[in-house]
Amino acid sequence: MKGTVLLCVPSFMALPLTVWAIMLSPVSADEGMWLFNNPPRKLLKEKYNFDPTDQWLEHVQKSSVRFNTGGSGSFVSASGLVMTNHHVGADCLQKLGDKDHNYYRDGFYAKTQADEKACHDLELNVLMSIEDVTERVSAAVKGLPAEQAAGARRKIMAEIEKESLDKTTFRSDVVTLYQGGQYHLYRFKKYTDVRLVFAPEQQIAFFGGDPDNFEYPRFDLDVCFFRVYENDKPAKIEHYLRWSKAGATKDELVLVSGHPGHTDRLNTVADLEYLRDRFYPFALQRLNRMEVMLTAYSARSDENARQAKELLFGVQNSRKARDGGLGGLLDPAIMAQKIKTEESFREAIRNHPDLKDVDLVWNQIAEAVKAEAKNLRRHTVLEGARGGAAGFASTYFAIARTLLRAAAEYPKPNGDRLREFRDSNKESLELDLFSDEPLYDNYEEARLASSLTFLCSQLGYNNKVVQQVLAGKSPEERARELIIGTKLKDVAERKRLYEGGLKAIDESKDPMILLAKLVDPEARALRKVQETQVDEVKRQAYNQIARAKYTLEGAGTYPDATFTLRLAFGVVKGYEENGKHVPFETRFAGLYERAQEHHDKPPFDLPPRWIKNKDKLDLSTPFNFVCTADIIGGNSGSPVINKDAEVVGLIFDGNIQSLVLDFVYTEKLARAVAVHSRGIVEALRSVYDVQSLADELTGAK
Amino acid sequence: MKGTVLLCVPSFMALPLTVWAIMLSPVSADEGMWLFNNPPRKLLKEKYNFDPTDQWLEHVQKSSVRFNTGGSGSFVSASGLVMTNHHVGADCLQKLGDKDHNYYRDGFYAKTQADEKACHDLELNVLMSIEDVTERVSAAVKGLPAEQAAGARRKIMAEIEKESLDKTTFRSDVVTLYQGGQYHLYRFKKYTDVRLVFAPEQQIAFFGGDPDNFEYPRFDLDVCFFRVYENDKPAKIEHYLRWSKAGATKDELVLVSGHPGHTDRLNTVADLEYLRDRFYPFALQRLNRMEVMLTAYSARSDENARQAKELLFGVQNSRKARDGGLGGLLDPAIMAQKIKTEESFREAIRNHPDLKDVDLVWNQIAEAVKAEAKNLRRHTVLEGARGGAAGFASTYFAIARTLLRAAAEYPKPNGDRLREFRDSNKESLELDLFSDEPLYDNYEEARLASSLTFLCSQLGYNNKVVQQVLAGKSPEERARELIIGTKLKDVAERKRLYEGGLKAIDESKDPMILLAKLVDPEARALRKVQETQVDEVKRQAYNQIARAKYTLEGAGTYPDATFTLRLAFGVVKGYEENGKHVPFETRFAGLYERAQEHHDKPPFDLPPRWIKNKDKLDLSTPFNFVCTADIIGGNSGSPVINKDAEVVGLIFDGNIQSLVLDFVYTEKLARAVAVHSRGIVEALRSVYDVQSLADELTGAK
Repeated sequence: MKGTVLLCVPSFMALPLTVWAIMLSPVSADEGMWLFNNPPRKLLKEKYNFDPTDQWLEHVQKSSVRFNTGGSGSFVSASGLVMTNHHVGADCLQKLGDKDHNYYRDGFYAKTQADEKACHDLELNVLMSIEDVTERVSAAVKGLPAEQAAGARRKIMAEIEKESLDKTTFRSDVVTLYQGGQYHLYRFKKYTDVRLVFAPEQQIAFFGGDPDNFEYPRFDLDVCFFRVYENDKPAKIEHYLRWSKAGATKDELVLVSGHPGHTDRLNTVADLEYLRDRFYPFALQRLNRMEVMLTAYSARSDENARQAKELLFGVQNSRKARDGGLGGLLDPAIMAQKIKTEESFREAIRNHPDLKDVDLVWNQIAEAVKAEAKNLRRHTVLEGARGGAAGFASTYFAIARTLLRAAAEYPKPNGDRLREFRDSNKESLELDLFSDEPLYDNYEEARLASSLTFLCSQLGYNNKVVQQVLAGKSPEERARELIIGTKLKDVAERKRLYEGGLKAIDESKDPMILLAKLVDPEARALRKVQETQVDEVKRQAYNQIARAKYTLEGAGTYPDATFTLRLAFGVVKGYEENGKHVPFETRFAGLYERAQEHHDKPPFDLPPRWIKNKDKLDLSTPFNFVCTADIIGGNSGSPVINKDAEVVGLIFDGNIQSLVLDFVYTEKLARAVAVHSRGIVEALRSVYDVQSLADELTGAK
Repeated sequence: MKGTVLLCVPSFMALPLTVWAIMLSPVSADEGMWLFNNPPRKLLKEKYNFDPTDQWLEHVQKSSVRFNTGGSGSFVSASGLVMTNHHVGADCLQKLGDKDHNYYRDGFYAKTQADEKACHDLELNVLMSIEDVTERVSAAVKGLPAEQAAGARRKIMAEIEKESLDKTTFRSDVVTLYQGGQYHLYRFKKYTDVRLVFAPEQQIAFFGGDPDNFEYPRFDLDVCFFRVYENDKPAKIEHYLRWSKAGATKDELVLVSGHPGHTDRLNTVADLEYLRDRFYPFALQRLNRMEVMLTAYSARSDENARQAKELLFGVQNSRKARDGGLGGLLDPAIMAQKIKTEESFREAIRNHPDLKDVDLVWNQIAEAVKAEAKNLRRHTVLEGARGGAAGFASTYFAIARTLLRAAAEYPKPNGDRLREFRDSNKESLELDLFSDEPLYDNYEEARLASSLTFLCSQLGYNNKVVQQVLAGKSPEERARELIIGTKLKDVAERKRLYEGGLKAIDESKDPMILLAKLVDPEARALRKVQETQVDEVKRQAYNQIARAKYTLEGAGTYPDATFTLRLAFGVVKGYEENGKHVPFETRFAGLYERAQEHHDKPPFDLPPRWIKNKDKLDLSTPFNFVCTADIIGGNSGSPVINKDAEVVGLIFDGNIQSLVLDFVYTEKLARAVAVHSRGIVEALRSVYDVQSLADELTGAK
């Protein structure tokens, strides 16, 4: 799924933070992003006569890997080999490049383990255990008004995480599920020494480019291999996925284990209308702006294009996903179905003696949505999701803000801090903050100038903060001055300020630190409004809806996606589109035909290796395929496995019809798109001649 | 100037209609877009010792040609040869192409006159006479309140035009100058049989593409030749410009005769703030959206790219111009200068016994600006500048609206109609309406679907008009249905409806006509608000400011640009940028160097002819040059002439520093960019081997 980028680049794409929701209609068909501790046993048994054992589930869970940049992956060898998509590895590939090396564009292969290249700041997580802590969280907030409840909840969550961290040394996150209906403590084994093993050329990973993105049939080798190390040696992995000889076959049951990022599938109608009328149009306004800016910047030189490539890809991908999502929301058929379901559910609530009062929470959500709409623009430009303020789109600003807030937050008790500064997240935060990824002043300046201009248009030029930010200069001049002036390029300086705490920050004259300081009071105030008047109100209201749902329908269902590990399932099959049958798989032969159709012009051009080695390839090998599994952005890089937990494919996209999966599941046309396991091995052997990697995958060595 | 597109594609770029303004500071240096009946004699005499005779002025005026698609040109032979830019000819080039011919991309040359290709709907105008009708217009509106004044003014203008048309058969337009300080009757000789003679490949006309647009140094052969015909024979032209042997030389005085489209140079501060805070950001939001949509559409196939190429070019060009303009408005130095000038002017007014009351009109303008800001989004999507509603971006919709309104307007007395339906404009309107330019359903559908989505976001999905427009479908479905269903593809059907008048329109079941009907009441209401509460109020207020200005400073100045013929002047010279000297001219050798720098990759790739014929070219020939003349969008295609009225170059762009010329003149860095006359001839002879055309230009034949 190209939608991963929605999750991993918060600076340009603020998702509504807490649109958690619960099921409002019974699950059927191949629907569902299921929790590993509440798997769809009944559905699998009834429909497919498949009954996974607890061992099967534990094995698949521990073979699954989360990329904290926003995607999924899996262990595929006992020596720490991790498989994911090229576009999930993009962040690392981009950062490893420099003026003379463009690994993102040209690909990479480490002939020996000594050649494997350490990523700058990649963190991988493996889910080791799940513990239900709902009771403890609920007890801590019981009876409190929204304003205090938000704080109390944050505090108890941080406390539980800290306890767990101290006890187990595992990364420990309390995750919110079923819209606050349940809280689970997830413990992760963390890998931070991650090295690049193999990536193909971006040309073939993303063959067809933006025009073919979210389309099918496809012909993409969207694959990338990393290896995790411990103590400078390849990690020994107990749970990893074996390779299937046959790969995905027609009408076969397949399962997908991965991390769907976010769905709004079960929002109330008021919440969906907010997305349709305010959030999506505003998000698209920003994405269009960024796409135009980055495209223009890229056109100026090859080096510019290299610097901007990953972000541009992410922006285009998000834009297309948002366009598709908005298209779904503007489809009256979908909205009518939502309205109908909601009405009958509310009627059932009103007719139930114990639930009558729950009907009122729809109004509370509608009120929260109003506050959210009112806050949207200001919050987005000054604070943003996870601190990625859209008005200050420079990595230096993000660093400055983190340093400023770290100094203010860490002295507080763990539970009272802004959530990203909780103890259990400290190591991850430092990995990011002290990353030695190369930054480019021209690029930072162009992005910052453009975002300052956007800031002016959103808050108004005469706004007090805007005037203070610009300090009597035009956005271009101001951006130049800030980028030239900041010393945060130097990781040692970041460390000095970080370790120096409040005193060092107070004394700093770094213009980027001063800027972050200037904006901070208002940014924090906006965040507070969002957390107390929107997030917390919604959380409590949805919690009540969730309870009513359980009362009426029982609990055998799945929560909306939250970038936690899920199990989906489906069958390998094609579909009918405008009266035409779209077959379930493509083959290598089709790749060459499509390139020819487009006269080998970008983005339909083939890398030289693929032209040279065409004769060596078995052109009848399956390349990509589709299945009905229920996936969304964040599932990128998820393994597709068979009943024996063998790899038969690798999720990398959904078709255009799958973009409504954000709101509603359908298997009529929506399909997950995957690279076929046989296509991967055939390409590795015949195009890239990387036999030892292919051997490691297939167990031949 | 690439900015021409601002003027000729109203469907995507609504300019504020009546931001006419007057001078608020004395003219100096090489400033000014001067009227031919009020030329800068004093400045030219004092600074350059040049004293053009009346004959000189008449000759240059009548050698100048206006392209009604939005650019300038000139006669360059006695046989009707017209020179302009490739990008001014783009509209015709685009329309002449089809699935098998891409003249816009590949260029064109007619070996004989019989091969010259007639444009579908191109109209050229030559200004034959100017008559001051200020007194008659002013008398008709004297003492009337704004609401009635607007109608009365429209009526008297239409009356004057009709009288003139009947008497002379010339196209007759009453033009508003000095913000309503003066009204002049312009009589034009009109040419509608215009044929394409020569165009180079777009690659070389626009070498460097979007990255180099509005930049300098440049290497573009942005040139195109047409020939006007009368009675199927090349028109015999009395006034045409001879070719200079030497071409533009360093430090030489040069003059530019052309049609600058629009400046806001002399707006009040409140008006400029409106542009900065509302109009420009909103325009950029639309342009970014269109650019992304058109780029994605183009990427899908070569044929898509061909269909969208001209519009995409126009959108990118406007976007870059707007970005630059907004950058100027966000520059506190420029705004501070504006505020200071305004303050001292108002002080002088308050201190003058006869002018005291005039100080009040600044508040009137501020009020009008508020109404304009309030109306902006709705007016843009439902009505748009010149009927190009941004919510319905399809040529079929524009046709439907014109047919609908023609039926309603033509039965009214000439003076009571919407201005575009005045008798004197009828022939031009019909040329456009019955154009047999090819239209492409996929392309129309993609644009319409995108604009309907934009409509939803601007008015809100639950807006009554939006709901009626969508008729229970998603924007995509609705667009498809409308485009499939309309019969307006057929020019004969358009004629039938046009000639059938109100009855035919009433009976029509064409879905596009029905859509235009549905939207019309609200669209007309919004236009009325714009015309009475904004345009007319501003017109009257600026008129008073203009009078005050004359009282205090005299009338020896030039009005803001209004796409009327103007004379500018300056010297050929380079400038200093970031401490580096930018030379006044480039040469062919530089073109090849720049292509090499960029590895011959688009948009820095050379057409095959230029590679093949490199050796034949004299690489030391001047190619492009810059001068200080005061120009803006609409000046594209203007001849640059010397004191002897000989062609020394051809305006095609301004540098990035010239984008502030919309608001303020500066000759420090701002430069007009032109193709050198010697470069044109050298390319025609040595690259294209079109000797007869070169002979016709240089008088060698």
